Amino acid sequence: MNADHPARLSRAAAAARERGLDALLVPPGPDLVYLLGYGPMPLERLTMLVLRPGAEPVLIVPELERPLAAATPAGELVVLIGWRDTDDPYAEVGRILPAAARLAVGDHLWASHLLKLQAVLPAASFEPASSTTGSIRAVKDADELDALARAGRAADDVFRDICSLPFAGRREDEVASDLARLLVEHGHHRADFTIVGSGPNSASPHHEAGTREIRTGDAVVLDFGGEVDGYFSDTTRTVVVGDGPDGFKAVYDAVRDAQQAAFEAVGPGVPAEHVDRAARSVIEAAGYGERFVHRTGHGIGLEVHEAPDIVEGNDTLLAPGMTFSLEPGIYLEGRFGVRIEDIVAVTAEGAERLNDSPRDLQVVT
Amino acid sequence: MNADHPARLSRAAAAARERGLDALLVPPGPDLVYLLGYGPMPLERLTMLVLRPGAEPVLIVPELERPLAAATPAGELVVLIGWRDTDDPYAEVGRILPAAARLAVGDHLWASHLLKLQAVLPAASFEPASSTTGSIRAVKDADELDALARAGRAADDVFRDICSLPFAGRREDEVASDLARLLVEHGHHRADFTIVGSGPNSASPHHEAGTREIRTGDAVVLDFGGEVDGYFSDTTRTVVVGDGPDGFKAVYDAVRDAQQAAFEAVGPGVPAEHVDRAARSVIEAAGYGERFVHRTGHGIGLEVHEAPDIVEGNDTLLAPGMTFSLEPGIYLEGRFGVRIEDIVAVTAEGAERLNDSPRDLQVVT
Repeated sequence: MNADHPARLSRAAAAARERGLDALLVPPGPDLVYLLGYGPMPLERLTMLVLRPGAEPVLIVPELERPLAAATPAGELVVLIGWRDTDDPYAEVGRILPAAARLAVGDHLWASHLLKLQAVLPAASFEPASSTTGSIRAVKDADELDALARAGRAADDVFRDICSLPFAGRREDEVASDLARLLVEHGHHRADFTIVGSGPNSASPHHEAGTREIRTGDAVVLDFGGEVDGYFSDTTRTVVVGDGPDGFKAVYDAVRDAQQAAFEAVGPGVPAEHVDRAARSVIEAAGYGERFVHRTGHGIGLEVHEAPDIVEGNDTLLAPGMTFSLEPGIYLEGRFGVRIEDIVAVTAEGAERLNDSPRDLQVVT
Repeated sequence: MNADHPARLSRAAAAARERGLDALLVPPGPDLVYLLGYGPMPLERLTMLVLRPGAEPVLIVPELERPLAAATPAGELVVLIGWRDTDDPYAEVGRILPAAARLAVGDHLWASHLLKLQAVLPAASFEPASSTTGSIRAVKDADELDALARAGRAADDVFRDICSLPFAGRREDEVASDLARLLVEHGHHRADFTIVGSGPNSASPHHEAGTREIRTGDAVVLDFGGEVDGYFSDTTRTVVVGDGPDGFKAVYDAVRDAQQAAFEAVGPGVPAEHVDRAARSVIEAAGYGERFVHRTGHGIGLEVHEAPDIVEGNDTLLAPGMTFSLEPGIYLEGRFGVRIEDIVAVTAEGAERLNDSPRDLQVVT
């Protein structure tokens, strides 16, 4: 990855100016990695990029991490201001900002940090930085798309391999361990999540993986992803062990058709919420509208969840280079659930799937 | 671990009442694990415990995670209120609170969530919840001390084993991988951090592990830890490969003596800052005061960094059951650094080290 950090900083500063902001305040996290190529752990000691339109960017950094920051691209991009454990870093931030500043703070900035910033800048107003950085990060460049595509292909390899392993008689967490191992074997730097929900657990969308023993006749939701060069995969398939549970086929077909309808709705200039409606209308027509309890998808990139949300109420116009999940689901509590998820990229003509495992029902043993 | 969650909830509610708070607002994270035994991922979808003195605790939870929450101890402890992607969970929180509420929010609550809470409760005041939960969590019960002691002993085993492996000619990140493997082999559920700073990198306190090849004559800072039953180890030792660099011995001895002085200063009723002063005065007397750029230590438990801070300005009185690091260091930029760190527990009589690897200089090959 040869990220053009100066161009990213300029775009972010221009977007901040356009929103009438005096500064973006960016803590450790994906925005900081995106803008400066610097990725320290978020800690109770404040690290913060202060990016003001028309002024030199400043990175406030704990003195003990200054050498670390200086050795990254940040060292060439910003003025580093180190502070020691007996200094007040919030006052340092306040000193370089107008008293009634309009500020955007990183969405994941800790509340403990935000409250201290609000205390030193009582006349300032604050909003989440994703309103500014989200739309910039949402459109991926060629290197970013390449990393996401490699992650997606690796996830396809994982799904192919997991289907050839036994399910019946093994515990969910054993299958989850296999997923974690396969994610790394197929080129992920690390596994990030490995959801295995079997039988009634498949009806709990964020069930992770427990000690339940998988049985013949179970539906099993597999939702897994990992990181490749800082970018994520995120794929879901629902398989059955032998014959599926009663009523399974109608539900599966509704989800598969909803996912396909969402895919076909994607294209440049389309409002994000239209894609959600495309999936939802298929599931409503099948009579399961109440059981589709989440949005159709979420953006993905340096974070597993980022802009754009594919949800009712989001009128963001899709643009080439945007990448997000399409993952409709139906959950019948106590019985079973089905979810099918691919990552797609918006292209000039429409959309492309970055992972593309079979969406026809796979039967495992 | 058989945590007494009802007693913890009562203590937290009583502490909130004592501070004049109308509620504690607790998002996913260690406070939620401590109070409810429920540990979902922090996400952009709001999950929040609303704990009001004298009222039934409520957990606001995304509908798709309600089954997950209900299956944990939280299911028996709180009223679950599920919300869907088209609902406003912040308004839901606001509805059950007085307009001018005094509120404490989890320190790690995301800024994006806090700003939305501030918007629905414009007359409310907010403070970090650690002011209330920090002192409760700082004093560990017998099960918690046991988990921390097991983590500390496992870290000792890791240090013993790493010293028998070769250093010279290997890269920092290779040694770091060995640390990660050994942490798990010796009983940690997962490795959390594996800092290996060699040669000049040892002078960068939060250097992680890079591609530098370790050479004979290097000082090497090893700072590693992992998780056992939710509780952490955190140990640092500085070793030399063959003969150390010029001037090393005087620096090493100053750090070792400072760490011992800190240990001897610990006891019930002692202000935390006195322990910092005990370490700092030894290093100042040796002429390196300016090179000890961080606090002497931090509390540890469900988080690697929690209350109490062992730092000038913290007059918290130490009490039996408190656990924290003692980790003075001296950093000579461009040359080398030394840090020695143990986790200690305050006892009725004084203090006990939970890890106890040799503090005399270890020479590796």
